[in-house]
Amino acid sequence: MTPSHSIPAPDPAPDAARTEPWVGASVGRREDPRLLTGRGRFTDDIQLPGMLHAQFVRSTVASGTVTALDLSAVREVPGVVAAFTAAGLALGDITARLGRPLSEFVPTDMPVLAGDRVRYVGEPLAVVVARDPYAAEDGLEAARVTYETRTPVTSEAQALAPGAPLVHDGAGANTLLDVSMFATEGIDEIFAGAEHVVRVETRTGRQNALPLETRGVVAGWDDREEQLLLRMSSQVPHQVRTVAARCLGLDERAVRVVVPDMGGGFGLKCVVGREEIAVGAAALRLGRTVKWTEDRKDALTASFLAREQHYDVRAAFDGDGRVLGLDAAVVCDMGAYSCYPFTAGIEPLMASAEMPGVYKVPAYRVRARAVTTNKAPTAPYRGVSRPQYVMVMERLFERAARELGMDAVEVRRRNLITEFPYTGVNNITYDPGSYRESLDLCERVLRDEGWYARRDAAADEGRHLGIGYSCFNERTGYGSAAFAQRKMEVVPGFDIAEARMDTSGALTVTTGTMSHGQSHETTMAQIAADALGLDLAKVRVHQGDTDRVAYGWGTFASRSIAIGGSAVRLAAGKLGEKLRLIAAAHWDTAPEKVELGRGAVRRREDGATLSYEEIADLAYLRAHLLPPAIEPGLSATATFDVLNDGTFSNAAHGVVVELHEGTGQVEILRYVCVEDCGVAINPQVVEGQCRGGIAQGIAGALFERITYDEQGEPSATGFMDYKVPTAHEIPDITVHHLETPCAFTGTGAKGTGEGGTIGAPAAVLNAVNDALRPTGVELDDTPIRPETVASALEHAS
Amino acid sequence: MTPSHSIPAPDPAPDAARTEPWVGASVGRREDPRLLTGRGRFTDDIQLPGMLHAQFVRSTVASGTVTALDLSAVREVPGVVAAFTAAGLALGDITARLGRPLSEFVPTDMPVLAGDRVRYVGEPLAVVVARDPYAAEDGLEAARVTYETRTPVTSEAQALAPGAPLVHDGAGANTLLDVSMFATEGIDEIFAGAEHVVRVETRTGRQNALPLETRGVVAGWDDREEQLLLRMSSQVPHQVRTVAARCLGLDERAVRVVVPDMGGGFGLKCVVGREEIAVGAAALRLGRTVKWTEDRKDALTASFLAREQHYDVRAAFDGDGRVLGLDAAVVCDMGAYSCYPFTAGIEPLMASAEMPGVYKVPAYRVRARAVTTNKAPTAPYRGVSRPQYVMVMERLFERAARELGMDAVEVRRRNLITEFPYTGVNNITYDPGSYRESLDLCERVLRDEGWYARRDAAADEGRHLGIGYSCFNERTGYGSAAFAQRKMEVVPGFDIAEARMDTSGALTVTTGTMSHGQSHETTMAQIAADALGLDLAKVRVHQGDTDRVAYGWGTFASRSIAIGGSAVRLAAGKLGEKLRLIAAAHWDTAPEKVELGRGAVRRREDGATLSYEEIADLAYLRAHLLPPAIEPGLSATATFDVLNDGTFSNAAHGVVVELHEGTGQVEILRYVCVEDCGVAINPQVVEGQCRGGIAQGIAGALFERITYDEQGEPSATGFMDYKVPTAHEIPDITVHHLETPCAFTGTGAKGTGEGGTIGAPAAVLNAVNDALRPTGVELDDTPIRPETVASALEHAS
Repeated sequence: MTPSHSIPAPDPAPDAARTEPWVGASVGRREDPRLLTGRGRFTDDIQLPGMLHAQFVRSTVASGTVTALDLSAVREVPGVVAAFTAAGLALGDITARLGRPLSEFVPTDMPVLAGDRVRYVGEPLAVVVARDPYAAEDGLEAARVTYETRTPVTSEAQALAPGAPLVHDGAGANTLLDVSMFATEGIDEIFAGAEHVVRVETRTGRQNALPLETRGVVAGWDDREEQLLLRMSSQVPHQVRTVAARCLGLDERAVRVVVPDMGGGFGLKCVVGREEIAVGAAALRLGRTVKWTEDRKDALTASFLAREQHYDVRAAFDGDGRVLGLDAAVVCDMGAYSCYPFTAGIEPLMASAEMPGVYKVPAYRVRARAVTTNKAPTAPYRGVSRPQYVMVMERLFERAARELGMDAVEVRRRNLITEFPYTGVNNITYDPGSYRESLDLCERVLRDEGWYARRDAAADEGRHLGIGYSCFNERTGYGSAAFAQRKMEVVPGFDIAEARMDTSGALTVTTGTMSHGQSHETTMAQIAADALGLDLAKVRVHQGDTDRVAYGWGTFASRSIAIGGSAVRLAAGKLGEKLRLIAAAHWDTAPEKVELGRGAVRRREDGATLSYEEIADLAYLRAHLLPPAIEPGLSATATFDVLNDGTFSNAAHGVVVELHEGTGQVEILRYVCVEDCGVAINPQVVEGQCRGGIAQGIAGALFERITYDEQGEPSATGFMDYKVPTAHEIPDITVHHLETPCAFTGTGAKGTGEGGTIGAPAAVLNAVNDALRPTGVELDDTPIRPETVASALEHAS
Repeated sequence: MTPSHSIPAPDPAPDAARTEPWVGASVGRREDPRLLTGRGRFTDDIQLPGMLHAQFVRSTVASGTVTALDLSAVREVPGVVAAFTAAGLALGDITARLGRPLSEFVPTDMPVLAGDRVRYVGEPLAVVVARDPYAAEDGLEAARVTYETRTPVTSEAQALAPGAPLVHDGAGANTLLDVSMFATEGIDEIFAGAEHVVRVETRTGRQNALPLETRGVVAGWDDREEQLLLRMSSQVPHQVRTVAARCLGLDERAVRVVVPDMGGGFGLKCVVGREEIAVGAAALRLGRTVKWTEDRKDALTASFLAREQHYDVRAAFDGDGRVLGLDAAVVCDMGAYSCYPFTAGIEPLMASAEMPGVYKVPAYRVRARAVTTNKAPTAPYRGVSRPQYVMVMERLFERAARELGMDAVEVRRRNLITEFPYTGVNNITYDPGSYRESLDLCERVLRDEGWYARRDAAADEGRHLGIGYSCFNERTGYGSAAFAQRKMEVVPGFDIAEARMDTSGALTVTTGTMSHGQSHETTMAQIAADALGLDLAKVRVHQGDTDRVAYGWGTFASRSIAIGGSAVRLAAGKLGEKLRLIAAAHWDTAPEKVELGRGAVRRREDGATLSYEEIADLAYLRAHLLPPAIEPGLSATATFDVLNDGTFSNAAHGVVVELHEGTGQVEILRYVCVEDCGVAINPQVVEGQCRGGIAQGIAGALFERITYDEQGEPSATGFMDYKVPTAHEIPDITVHHLETPCAFTGTGAKGTGEGGTIGAPAAVLNAVNDALRPTGVELDDTPIRPETVASALEHAS
């Protein structure tokens, strides 16, 4: 018998002859060999001997008091090993706070398991642990729960109505956040005196971020390390560790979170979930390894949702199409609880702070509110509030252009920020971007491709083509300064990276960020390889283990390359300094007289080289030859934080749609994205981010929505009910790159994780409205429903 | 159904009120709760789904050429998955070198699997991988190997004889090391003019270090990390990684060695074994996880052996019992190959360098040789050559005393080093110790307990009691300077430690040393707790993972507390500085005005405190409040090396034996150890080390020996053949402590891992000879055989 198969060579073939930098090159993804050959290892792939399986007894009512929770029959189900209620596990709550007065923010602690009070359908009440997943499911059915039901709060309007039922009795109201900001002096007069005032009121549909991989955890106590090991799917392993340890009453070091391969997160996994902690507690109590894999129904209804927002915004314009002021009211339906660490304030606070976006808005007033409802809680979802407020802004400009009889692109041009740094009415300073250039290029591409002509020709044939644009920026690299402005009690910001070279001269970079599809194993390696003049094949990126770096805030808010990547560059740079010091000492020369590059330190005077492998051999295996001032070993750690307002990527999207009579189908004929995320570490990866993000933006614009009936029952429990676009609905997308480097991230990169999603809804909506122009109908809500489009076309034809 | 059991509280109860230091306290072992309740996790405890099992086809001849190695029948055995020969795996050799000319040292590279040439019975030829261990064993039986046998070399004398067969054809001779050193000028004249010259010739038996846990590995490729993960029992995980990567042709970072709980090592696991690498290679080839657990037969015959040495030493004395010179010849039978990293030179080089020990020897000459034989290779075993050369020295003093008609303790007293630092004839500088005081105390204890009177009274009854002593020192804290003196190509020395505090104020200390019974989880924590003024319950020690510190030389040569512990203290101290800086910044005061202690930083002027938990919260979760000069996070790394000759623990052992006529049994009636390892971090742990070491020393003195017949067949294949003492044969041992702190280890500790083993053979042998005094018989070889004792008593009576 011969071996059935061999492991492919783990490292790409070295390319020692290469002289051009790795940053900027579309090198193949380091992740792909294992992922494309089925060798990825996701949380649910983990199989351990004697492993048990958990599922959750969940509330079947949206609001109520639990009058009885009887698990005795559950425990009699064959294969069931244990079942625990909140009282049985006695865990601390998941708390998320803002440093704001109660008049502005009301905390709503989220218990790991609900006790007497349930607040949404799907809320976990008890965890059932069994020998196999089937027995666990059988166990759920044996649970006897009785409720005294209450009238649920199922909409923002109901939540705000006088005398509404309270989601949290102690809160006194359903408004969890109520903040008024930036009331520019004289704004009422500006509006009163403006030649044109346009208004957009929009409601955006509640969505699920829908990572292909649902949540999951394999939890077990490690006697050797005296640690609860949580192997789980999370964007923020260290944050989970912090919260899990608190809930469990353990020292933080007694919890270790290790994240295997991930099939997406999109924000849903950047907050701390309840189930993973409950499973950890069950594993602790049982002294056994316990796995939980969320099924799609629970993922859709009981994980975290997002995006259900209501905007009512007026914009004042002068006769030349220049915006004079913005007056906005935002209400976000945040569901039942605040999420850790962002709180229920995340969506309204981002919307209010950043709404002016790429435009010079001289006057601004906003009231932003979060309301709680008897629905699953929300979490940041790719772009957070930006897809919505960008849509509002872009609709305002379109509406103003119509009223002014001007071209909407031209109206935008007159208002785009073109001189940088620019400090806005919202007190944010924007670093340089290509706002104007990206829009110009985007329009030129569509024009050069003949889409304007085709649109007009199609109209003559009775077809309904439309062209729409959006332009926007995306604050990335949120450092501690930006989060502190939000008054978060826990302030994400810095990240830590370690660069370690082994005795063979190979480099391992460890980052506190957590790639869940972003290709950090590739891009972080490119950054480190350039910093050291090392072949990419000699660099490996490690992530997702709370024991490996002291802390990491994880991957969200498009922060990883801007912050984590800068830390990687700094750490690699520090290590490079040490390589130079050792080589200089070896040659008895000054460090200034040697330089790094191509896997070796080179002495400038004669070109003599000492390879990194030779230096590593000295640093580790012959350390007695080092001068006393140089410590043995080749390892360096660096921290990076952003202490200003962050950096701003930007983009312009252009879309051509065709509306189909009868079906109301919105077909996307062409999608052009001109993006500028500063230096693109790997343009192919940036394009992947754009395309994936745009697909999710299109999903929000045209397809996905979770509604709740009056009893608080969610409409979608599977893909039969929740319409997710497939390759069929997503067009080919062309991505053009502009590059305005960031001055302070070391690499010039700005971050690009969310951009695609931000720009798509506005551009699609504008294109649909362009196509609907002959009908006189204007649509502002998303998702755009086929019946609405069909109806508009029918009435007009 | 209720949970079957719960995990015990992982942390000992905090003792916040404690004010005395942790160092010096016999606190309970942190390891004990898990180990004593059966929750230890050893390599063989690891069970993984789909795991395969390996065993080795081994040579049945001691010397020969393999003419055919046919595994086809092996591969047909049901359950066998694969079988690989050396050619099939194509691995690099394990190389160990000294920086010496060929006239002094001949390298003998050790292939991972033997190819054409086999050099000892048990040498691995092929690895068989099967679905279960039984099928693997069945597979072995199906292997067809034919040899052209050669005459094996089975003794040192045969190896050195002219015209001897060669173990390594290319080496030209069987002498692998031949070094002459310290030929003090005029030494021949000193001997010629001395009033007394005594001579001791001794041979010591070949032993196995005999950890209860045999060697073992669970190897598997980790696709996510692109690493070969070797979970294995090793004292030197980083060294294994270095060698395994080289043999496998991988970057070093592509191998990760993780060491679970260990059931001893004693040096046998401080060198790099062949089987673990072969199993790793098989796992790589198969893309499967493969386990190998060494059985006792292989452990006894085919792992690493030690201690077969031949000394011929003369000592010159003046009429007052003062030693004038030492003229020594040492030949060590090192078996078939050099071990990594120490080479076949380890035993003879240590013996020659350190033989003068605790005595003022004015003139010294030594020739030290290593010979290769067709026996299993050797490795350092607890004490390396010290048990033997100490035995020689102590026998020389006893013999001189007899010749001089003096008390042997008094003769020792006249020669002990009493002024420090003392630089010996061997160019080693000894730091302060209690050489004289320990011997005095040891003798006083036995005298006060009445053993001298009892011995004499027993003689009157025809019984044979004897009292014997040994005094010795033990060089610990071998830094890079000491190993560089040995001219090792790879120079162990430094160690790295990391101290990391989490957001809850709990500390994790990571060390590059690897406790395999030494209680480092307890003692390293005591060191760190004191450095930070932290409760011991808040400190956890992590070890045995090559991914966690950049490098660590592991645990051997009693180096861990002296070097690793110093690194821990330095790292904790650095972390303490950061805690002070943050607290001082918080209070807007100078760092000098605050101090660490009792889990908090205290402001001196008013006693205000900021707990470590509060500081950690700032350092991680509110890092925006730190001054810009202070990086977020609480983590510090430190390196420690010993750049002088090391530090020297010392001890005196006193033993009372009774010899039994007829059986020749040597019964130990009393054992007293007076030890001085500097500051005892945990006296109970030190005593445990002494007792365990003494048991192993007694084993060498009286019981254990592996012999080979003329065909090179080993005598011992199990505990039926290899006599290991049990609790019955090991007496109660009293340990007294003296404390001469080391000036440069930070803690004052010197290290104590090997002392017990070093002192026991000499003291036991002297006691036996004391009891045999009436017979006129003197014994110098170990183990002392019962038949020899019985015969001596019979002839005398």
